[in-house]
This record gives sequence, C-alpha cells and structure tokens, in this order.
Amino acid sequence: MEQRPILMIIGDGMGDRPVPELDGRTPLAAARTPVLDELASGGACGLLDPIGPGVCAGSDTAHLALLGYDPYRYYTGRGPLEAAGVGLEPREGDVAFRCNFSTVEERDGELIVVDRRAGRIEEGTEELAAALDGLELLDGEVTAHFRESVAHRAALVLRGGKLGGEVADVDPHHEGVTVEPCRVLLPEGDPGYVPARRTAAALDEFIRRSFEIMGGLEVNRRRREAGRLPANIILPRGGGLVPHIPTFERRYGLRAGAVVEVGLLQGLLGSYLGLELIDCPEATGGMDTDVAAMAAALTRAVEDYEFIFLNLKAPDLAGHDDLPREKIRACELLDELLGRLRPVWEGRVVMAVSADHSTPCECGDHAGDPVPLLVHGPGVRPDTVKTYDEFACAAGALGHPLGRDLLPLLLTYANRYTKFGA
Amino acid sequence: MEQRPILMIIGDGMGDRPVPELDGRTPLAAARTPVLDELASGGACGLLDPIGPGVCAGSDTAHLALLGYDPYRYYTGRGPLEAAGVGLEPREGDVAFRCNFSTVEERDGELIVVDRRAGRIEEGTEELAAALDGLELLDGEVTAHFRESVAHRAALVLRGGKLGGEVADVDPHHEGVTVEPCRVLLPEGDPGYVPARRTAAALDEFIRRSFEIMGGLEVNRRRREAGRLPANIILPRGGGLVPHIPTFERRYGLRAGAVVEVGLLQGLLGSYLGLELIDCPEATGGMDTDVAAMAAALTRAVEDYEFIFLNLKAPDLAGHDDLPREKIRACELLDELLGRLRPVWEGRVVMAVSADHSTPCECGDHAGDPVPLLVHGPGVRPDTVKTYDEFACAAGALGHPLGRDLLPLLLTYANRYTKFGA
Repeated sequence: MEQRPILMIIGDGMGDRPVPELDGRTPLAAARTPVLDELASGGACGLLDPIGPGVCAGSDTAHLALLGYDPYRYYTGRGPLEAAGVGLEPREGDVAFRCNFSTVEERDGELIVVDRRAGRIEEGTEELAAALDGLELLDGEVTAHFRESVAHRAALVLRGGKLGGEVADVDPHHEGVTVEPCRVLLPEGDPGYVPARRTAAALDEFIRRSFEIMGGLEVNRRRREAGRLPANIILPRGGGLVPHIPTFERRYGLRAGAVVEVGLLQGLLGSYLGLELIDCPEATGGMDTDVAAMAAALTRAVEDYEFIFLNLKAPDLAGHDDLPREKIRACELLDELLGRLRPVWEGRVVMAVSADHSTPCECGDHAGDPVPLLVHGPGVRPDTVKTYDEFACAAGALGHPLGRDLLPLLLTYANRYTKFGA
Repeated sequence: MEQRPILMIIGDGMGDRPVPELDGRTPLAAARTPVLDELASGGACGLLDPIGPGVCAGSDTAHLALLGYDPYRYYTGRGPLEAAGVGLEPREGDVAFRCNFSTVEERDGELIVVDRRAGRIEEGTEELAAALDGLELLDGEVTAHFRESVAHRAALVLRGGKLGGEVADVDPHHEGVTVEPCRVLLPEGDPGYVPARRTAAALDEFIRRSFEIMGGLEVNRRRREAGRLPANIILPRGGGLVPHIPTFERRYGLRAGAVVEVGLLQGLLGSYLGLELIDCPEATGGMDTDVAAMAAALTRAVEDYEFIFLNLKAPDLAGHDDLPREKIRACELLDELLGRLRPVWEGRVVMAVSADHSTPCECGDHAGDPVPLLVHGPGVRPDTVKTYDEFACAAGALGHPLGRDLLPLLLTYANRYTKFGA
C-alpha cells in the first residue's frame, strides 16, 4: 500500500450562521471559492462537530480533538498549555497555571488588587521571573518553576509529590478586591481533596513570597521612579494537573510539522504535542498574512513531513469583529492558498479542509454550530456535494463526524492505519 | 449576543412506521400539516434517536435525555420518579419504590397474593398510607417515608445510612403466588452487595409490618363489611437508588416552565427536575385536549421563562391503540397548535419540534425507531427539507443526533452556551 502524506488545513473560526446582510448566506457561502468548490466536487464532504453537537469549542480543545486527542481527557485547563508554550516543559503530575504580573497594595494586612496587569508591564519581566523561578515551597517538598511570557503574562509549574488540579483561580479577575487564599474545588471527603489542598498551600506560599520578593527588585525600583505601577505580586489562574500526553509523533508514528500563526497554537502544537513548527515569518495571523508564502512553506513541507497542519487565523478575527464582508475575504484567502497548493493536492496527498469551530458574526465569539469538512485525495469516494459551505456540506457522504474522528479518517485514506483485531 | 428563549415541543410517541392502510405512509406523513412543513422549510431537520440507535425509550428516559440528562446516569428505575411525583422529595442516597396497595391471604405461614390492586381500591388510601409513613426499620437506622398516589398506587422511600438500589421487585407481578423475601441482584462479593442487602432487609421488615398493621385499620374493616377485598399489604417494585440530580435551572441557568398533560411527566419534569409546571386545565391528555389553550399558555410563558417545554400526549395514545387515522388527527392537532404559536416562532424564539419516541401503530407500544426533528429560529442554517415527517427529515442537515444532544444544540442557537476551553 502506498502511504500518503496528510495535509490538514484549518480555517480558524470559519463556520458561521445565515447573515441577513448576505441574504441569509454565510460568509463562506457568499465567498468566491472556486478551488474549494473544485475540491468539494472531487472529494467527500460533511459537517463536523469539533467536540460534540452543540458544544462550543475553544481553539485549544478543538485543536486537541482535530489532532486526535480526546479533549475531555487531555484538556485540564489553560495552565498546562501556557506552561508548555513558554518552554517550562510541564511533566505528568505537575500542576500548571497561567499567571499575571500584577500590582497590589497592602492595607490593614490585606492585599488589594490595584492593577491585574501591573500597568501593562512590557519590560523587565525576565528579571522578575528569574527571582521566582526555582523557589522551594512546603519545606522543599514542592518546587516552583516560573517563566515570563508576552507582556504581563507568565506561567507557573508546581512540581513535587502528589498534587491536585482542582483549585480555584487566585486571580480575582477584578480590581479593588482582596487577594484571598486559594480555594479547593472539591469537598473534604473527596479522594482528590488532599492533593488539591496541598496545591493550594504551595500556591499560597508562592504568592506570599512573590509579594515579599518582587517589591524590592531593581525593575520595580525603576518603575516607581518612572511613576509606573510596580509588578509586585503574581496572580495565578487556570490551574490544571498536567496529564500524560504522548507527542503526536509517538502517538501516530508520523513525522509532523505545522504552520500556525498564533501563540496559543504554537504552544499547543509545538511545545505540548511536539509537532515541529515550520518557519513562515510572512504568516502574520491577520488579514495581511501572506498565503503565497504559507503555500510555499507547505509545498516544501510535503517533502519533509508525513503529516502537515496549517491554521489560517483570518476568518476567526472577522467573526469576532462581526465583519461578514471581511470574513468573505478571509475565506477567499483560504481559497487562494489552496489554489497555490494545487500541485500538492493534485498529487498523492490526502487533504482535509475544515474549521476548528464556528465564530458566527452574529455572536462575535465562538459557538457550537458544526463546521464544513472536505476530504480530498486518492482513495476518497467522491460524493454529490459540489460546493464547499455550511449548507452544501450537510448532504456529504462523511455525515457528521466529531473532531476527534478526523485524524483516524485521514490515516485511513493515507494508508497509515493499524488494524483493530485480526 | 442576543440570548433567545427556547421552546421544545414534543409530540408524544409521534414517530411511526409505514402503515399499509395509509399506502405505506406514516400517520405523520399522511397528515395535513402545513405549519410543520413551513417550519421544516425555514429550519433545519434531522432524525433523532432519543437514547441511541434502535434503543426503545420509555417516556421517562426519553424526557431525561431530551432535557440534557444522560439517562444511563440519571435513570435508576421508576421508584425515584414516582416518589418525587407524589411529593416525597427523595434525596440522594435514598432508595425509592413504586408500590401497590394489595390483598394477600395467609396460608400455612405464607402470604399468597389474592389481588395485586386490592380490588382496585379507590378510597381510603390516604388513611392507610398515614399508618405506614414514618415507620422506623432496622432498629431505627432506616426510616420509611410512604405516600399514596392515584387509586391502588403508592410510593415508598427508605432513608438512613448506606443503602443500595440493586434489589428485585417483591411484587411478584402475578396472583396466586407467594410473596417471597426481597432478593439482592448482586453477587455476595460485589462491593454493592452489603448496602443492597441492607435495603432488602429494611424492605422485608416494612412489608411484614405493613401486613401486621393494615389488616386492622378502619378502612379495611369497612371494605370487608362492603364485601370488598382489604388492602392489607404493600408490594413494592421498581426500586432504585436516588442519584444526585441537579435541577434544570441549576444545571443550565435557565428559568424553565413546562406544559405537560400526564402525571409521569408532571412528576419527572416538575418534582424531579424542578421545572415549573404551567397551569393549563384545558390540556386533558386525550384527543379532546384544547390546543388553543395550550398555545395561549405557551405564548404567555415566553414572557416568563427562558426555556419552555410542551408535551402533547395524543399521538402516543393513538399509536398504543393501533389507530392510524386517529394518529393522523393527533399529528394535525400538533400542527394546529404550532399554527396558533406563529407569533411566537416568527419572533426571536429558538424552537425544536420532535418526539420522545416512536409508538408505531403496528407495535401498539414504544419502539426504537428514530423520530423526526426540526429546529427553527434565527441563527439556524436552513436545509433542503421541505416537509416534516420521518422520511423527509432523514435528509436534513442536523443528521442523526441523540436525544441528549438536542438541548446543547438549542443552547447554541439561543446563544446561551458556555465555551469549553479558550
């Protein structure tokens, strides 16, 4: 059997709902997409539920599913993803958090949040993080691994002994309120209570010591002199126990590369799942992204990788901004990208084109509506669908698969499957 | 995002199979239903499996699923539902039973069932129940809560310590046979055996004492004088451990009301799931029900509730009675109801029309055939289906969702969803 390369092309947030100003069409249906329609005619289509029918997916949970990882098993909150994204290499059993560098004021023995983003601090966070990284907590039983991310953002990993992830955010998400101790989200009798209590104790100690240490650092002395708010505490949120998560290559035996435009996906696919991030500096993540450069990067990648992933961010942005005509242009960008990839998909590649979720213009946010799916390549049974949009794909031969079904389908068409049974 | 009200309209048992005397059409396909067809044309359709493909649903399990509660988790037998229905307010950890007031005769130290329904007793059951309610069992470790229902029916709740639900019916379901001690349905080594054994012991004590107490009560003295069978024992069946079940409002954050015609659904939706029962005395549960009054009640309800549920019982009755032409009339009643609701569904409401199960005339009972589904409202992508019946809906864009998928779908279209992930 010929083993074929697999290409998964995701138009971020591309699904939509009928838009009145487009005469009830969706942006994708209203867009001029001759290449997508040609691919639909030559391939098989369907409507895909990224997580489940009616479930509104985040970018993170949806991409886990599209890459074959059950999000209900592998998604334990944003903390582990952020920690991987900044290079902290979280391990199974750690508990990881997203954090902000924040500003608090001490009043009557309480810490009051003045600014959750420490005056939108941009510089010096590396020095602040270095002073916190490696702190020993709970008499040395737990170590804190801490690293800065972009601007006021950072990530924290707690490591050591049995820790639990069921703890509430310490970041109160509002200003002018007191920083309270970390709450455990389980009742006392629950088997998970004791490890989660231990996480809460380590976290409270880390936060207290961050406040003791950070105020006196040189960065904050300079900030005060310049009339800026000091970054004098760390406020964690999005805590989650790090699961055992095999890399994509280990799980599927495929050398895998990805062209992605945004940090969250770089962290998720690159650091967390171990796909190689393919360099494409012309991919900006905006409407000005260079699809010719992206197509060129993918064309080269087909020589080097067995699985290649691409996410085009533009449709999602237009959906979030409720700009249907901009979203039409974003869909047409995807069509242009696919036109430039013609030599690739006219060959022996198995290719899927879909979306990670709907971002309907009327919502200005993600929603649970299914997304169009097409699969094209040798071995795929063509169906009757001739156009690629949310309406036409409903009649496709692929029916209504879940996001986590897509990778097994592609492995089948690529002749890269393994048999279950004899 | 505009948050829309949700309306779920269920034609009870409306699904059917080809009927020879209707030239192979189903009653729904043969019925004149211009409003349903208009709604199908403007909305999206599918075929819904209430529980799973080929699984024959009860009214109780189907309605749990349609309201988003996995019946495999939340349905533990009829006992808990009946207990809720008569107002016993069963709590998590209780074991609850349906019961009959029955007549037994003592022969050679054994109790032989003479009449499972105590001569179809109609009166005096309140007095009988009062004599049993509050009995202390197992040396006071377990309390029996007991209340009469309609005619010969009643419900029993056992409360106290760790009880198990895996016990067989004591009601032998036949007359002329001996009342045997309660059997545990688990093997002795099973972790659930000891609590179930405890339930069986408490139940046996309750039954023995019901026989000791009831024979001498004034109600039975009068019955004997009138030549009637005494209600001199309680025979329980349908035992189940009461699960933790969050109310609908707590689970979905929606103020919810329901127009339902039959007692089982009043108990399930009202007492068990906490939906408010909307008064509509003209809703009789029969072919003579007043759909104009029901439509008026729903129209008012849209102002007061965020989720409104309606069950029209008539189609199920006709299916049970194998009366296809009567079932046609019942489907037309639903169409009339929807016609009267036009001002509601032409507005901003998200509405689903479906059935809780098929009750094919040829079966005279529920069956596992899927049921037609339509979803209509702003945001719904219209599909190619133009008529609402079991045949046409098969081509709909909603595909083949499960019953438990329906509520998440409606929450999506109503913009009342939460995101999984970020």
